[in-house]
Amino acid sequence: MTTTDIAQLSIAEAAALIGKRKLSPVELTESCLQRIGSLDARLRAFITVTREDALAAAQQAATAIAGGNYKGPLHGIPFALKDLFDTAGVRTTAGSKIMAERVPQEDAEATVRLKAAGAVLLGKLNMHEFAFGITGVNPHYGGTYNPWDTTRMSGGSSSGAGAAVAAAMTLGALGTDTGGSIRAPASLCGITGLKPTYGRVSRRGITPLSWALDHAGPMARSAADAAIILKVIAGHDPQDETSSEEPVPDYTKALKDQRLKRLRIGVPQEYFFDNVDDEVLRAIHAAILVLRDDLKAGVSEVSLPHIAEAPAAVSAIMLPEALAYHKRWLAERPQDYGEDVRARLEMGLLYPAVSYVQAQRFRSLIVEEWRQKVFDRVDLLAVPTTPVPAPSLEENDLQTTLTLTRFTGPFNLTGLPAISIPCGFTKGGLPIGMQLVGRWWDEATVLRAAHAYQQATDWHKRPPPL
Amino acid sequence: MTTTDIAQLSIAEAAALIGKRKLSPVELTESCLQRIGSLDARLRAFITVTREDALAAAQQAATAIAGGNYKGPLHGIPFALKDLFDTAGVRTTAGSKIMAERVPQEDAEATVRLKAAGAVLLGKLNMHEFAFGITGVNPHYGGTYNPWDTTRMSGGSSSGAGAAVAAAMTLGALGTDTGGSIRAPASLCGITGLKPTYGRVSRRGITPLSWALDHAGPMARSAADAAIILKVIAGHDPQDETSSEEPVPDYTKALKDQRLKRLRIGVPQEYFFDNVDDEVLRAIHAAILVLRDDLKAGVSEVSLPHIAEAPAAVSAIMLPEALAYHKRWLAERPQDYGEDVRARLEMGLLYPAVSYVQAQRFRSLIVEEWRQKVFDRVDLLAVPTTPVPAPSLEENDLQTTLTLTRFTGPFNLTGLPAISIPCGFTKGGLPIGMQLVGRWWDEATVLRAAHAYQQATDWHKRPPPL
Repeated sequence: MTTTDIAQLSIAEAAALIGKRKLSPVELTESCLQRIGSLDARLRAFITVTREDALAAAQQAATAIAGGNYKGPLHGIPFALKDLFDTAGVRTTAGSKIMAERVPQEDAEATVRLKAAGAVLLGKLNMHEFAFGITGVNPHYGGTYNPWDTTRMSGGSSSGAGAAVAAAMTLGALGTDTGGSIRAPASLCGITGLKPTYGRVSRRGITPLSWALDHAGPMARSAADAAIILKVIAGHDPQDETSSEEPVPDYTKALKDQRLKRLRIGVPQEYFFDNVDDEVLRAIHAAILVLRDDLKAGVSEVSLPHIAEAPAAVSAIMLPEALAYHKRWLAERPQDYGEDVRARLEMGLLYPAVSYVQAQRFRSLIVEEWRQKVFDRVDLLAVPTTPVPAPSLEENDLQTTLTLTRFTGPFNLTGLPAISIPCGFTKGGLPIGMQLVGRWWDEATVLRAAHAYQQATDWHKRPPPL
Repeated sequence: MTTTDIAQLSIAEAAALIGKRKLSPVELTESCLQRIGSLDARLRAFITVTREDALAAAQQAATAIAGGNYKGPLHGIPFALKDLFDTAGVRTTAGSKIMAERVPQEDAEATVRLKAAGAVLLGKLNMHEFAFGITGVNPHYGGTYNPWDTTRMSGGSSSGAGAAVAAAMTLGALGTDTGGSIRAPASLCGITGLKPTYGRVSRRGITPLSWALDHAGPMARSAADAAIILKVIAGHDPQDETSSEEPVPDYTKALKDQRLKRLRIGVPQEYFFDNVDDEVLRAIHAAILVLRDDLKAGVSEVSLPHIAEAPAAVSAIMLPEALAYHKRWLAERPQDYGEDVRARLEMGLLYPAVSYVQAQRFRSLIVEEWRQKVFDRVDLLAVPTTPVPAPSLEENDLQTTLTLTRFTGPFNLTGLPAISIPCGFTKGGLPIGMQLVGRWWDEATVLRAAHAYQQATDWHKRPPPL
């Protein structure tokens, strides 16, 4: 296999080879580092590459595995972290100038769990400054370019994760998602990104944007790979007060049942199909036909009460919460923020407390309504992830931000698990993402449907032209 | 026994007599109704007296008990509800003009549980308008006068409950407490009032003031009676999203262990003993000596991190939440609010969202700090309930509001269970209340210590001079 072939392996494929000692973690890590070396100047997916540490960790994994101490499917697998996750001894910038020199003493809980599973950290990924934007254009570390068309954005805020996974610089990554920041780059870069249920993955050691809306989750090339990562990072963390004690199933095992016959998939007729790019629309409709006709899922129309009011509630919660975290720096170091993030923080000043309270009450209301009136009749929702494919980097403005988060933000508000998977390409060769959304805590069904779809199609296997 | 003797029975005493068929629920109910009839014109404790329904319910209880169907210690016991609790078919005003004609179709969950236990509803109690004040002075239904001195306030917002229990117009009552509204009237009227842990008692069917701070709980003449009521009203309500699934112990059983030898009681040296009336100070110190010397509890000094910042956080949460509920009426019917409540609602407009978010973050912080640094070394806190005895009714102003809630509000913010019990009288004959505060969900220890104190003293048995 060539270096590129190796780096393009899925986690499941690489793990199978490593488990059988047909592939060394060192060779795999070197292949990724080589891809990073040859591509990252063009893509700017990484803020920090931990080359020496990665090679040492890979060597340690190789030795352990050779000694018969194989830990499981992430052992010896290279991965990268959005630079919002604390890494002990490795600087963690949050994509900001303010934290540019910050070196945490402890790993984030998700970092701890990945390392304990034997995964090999390649480095820290570029992102929208403080995760407060969806375009991935960063004034301090450069914008991340889309591997499918480097004049276009990779989406954000987990921009580097989207680009690095798509360009086979890493096999997997962790991102965070407050209004769509895992799913939008997954959609725009043609990879698989899962925002789990609110409370499913610990957020300890991740710089917050909005406590009520922040989620951490896996980004990888397939649902099967996302399942492997989620199993490792999910589960209760007593030191994170929003972390749930909900039991964590074996997601990989859940994938085995590929018949979707008993699954009821709802397709909302309002909101998610308004003002959507024609090519996106056609791709989503074709994908839904695959689910219905090839995979035999039940597909029906469904109505989502109050959906149109969700984006305003997301803003009314996110902006003041972001400001609460940044207030002191905004007063003391306003010039150290990028213009767009500073303007967004200042918008937070305009919200009165009563609108925040009303938005939180709305959240409770919509959760209860959807529980009773949506998920009583369907198991999943199928909708576009973003209304458009990757916009040009020049469209880094408020309108693009609102457009790119329109279909993702409602699931931050409701806390529902939502995955974005590739479901086609535009004539111009840009990926299109479909979002599958499940019941609270039911990532297993979300992953199972996404995996079945990926078994029936091969959109997720097409490599970008790099 | 005279009518007054009968009405002055504790719930435990009356239940023992009813259980042995030595007292009829009808006679008991008639005694209460007679007290209401002769005293309420002077005290204004009731907004609505449900005389005929009460007598019918008492008769029904008497028949059931005579037939051998005794339901337990609340069967045939008269009680009254703050007019914030919904009662099917009985108007529920929330002390307001706006809801003056409102007749709910369903009982509040707490009402349902009391009725199911066989208790007899006497009527609906006067209160501060919309529970949004601590003085109990109501512009629509009159101020509730203190039974110990009718020139003084009974405290609020559960003013009618404080006065009615003290004046033996009812054996028990339910109140609500957002910043001290159970404990302040208990302190000022010389009765026992328990604010349980946040989430312990369902709030469904209770007009909200502040979702994050509202609690419902029992008001009665003794801790033993509060234990009986709490056992009935506590426990999970799946239709109240803030209701906890924490198991409910047998509180009456918990009272039996009267040795406080292993109990560690903390007395905070800051905040709770600053600017306190001398007679209150002396009474609390004497009460702490009873706990230590007579009851052999361990008493030590304790420090409560961040306590001085708690009242500002209570306001930053309560005012915007109250406004969120009232916003529409405030816009459409401003003239229908009393001046003080309207002014307080308008204050809610001044809070920016970021201060609300910071107050909620502060709440998480203080809860975690107290868990780790206070309740690791003590089981209970002993502090004054109010810094002063009942103020004159003329002192119905902001300063009095801040004074009366100073020692109670922090436990709404932290959600800790807190009881107020009588622990002495001023030379002028006004009751003084001591507050005992326990760990989250540990009402059993709070009640046990309060009961042991009441067995060792008899402050709670002194009737007001009416």
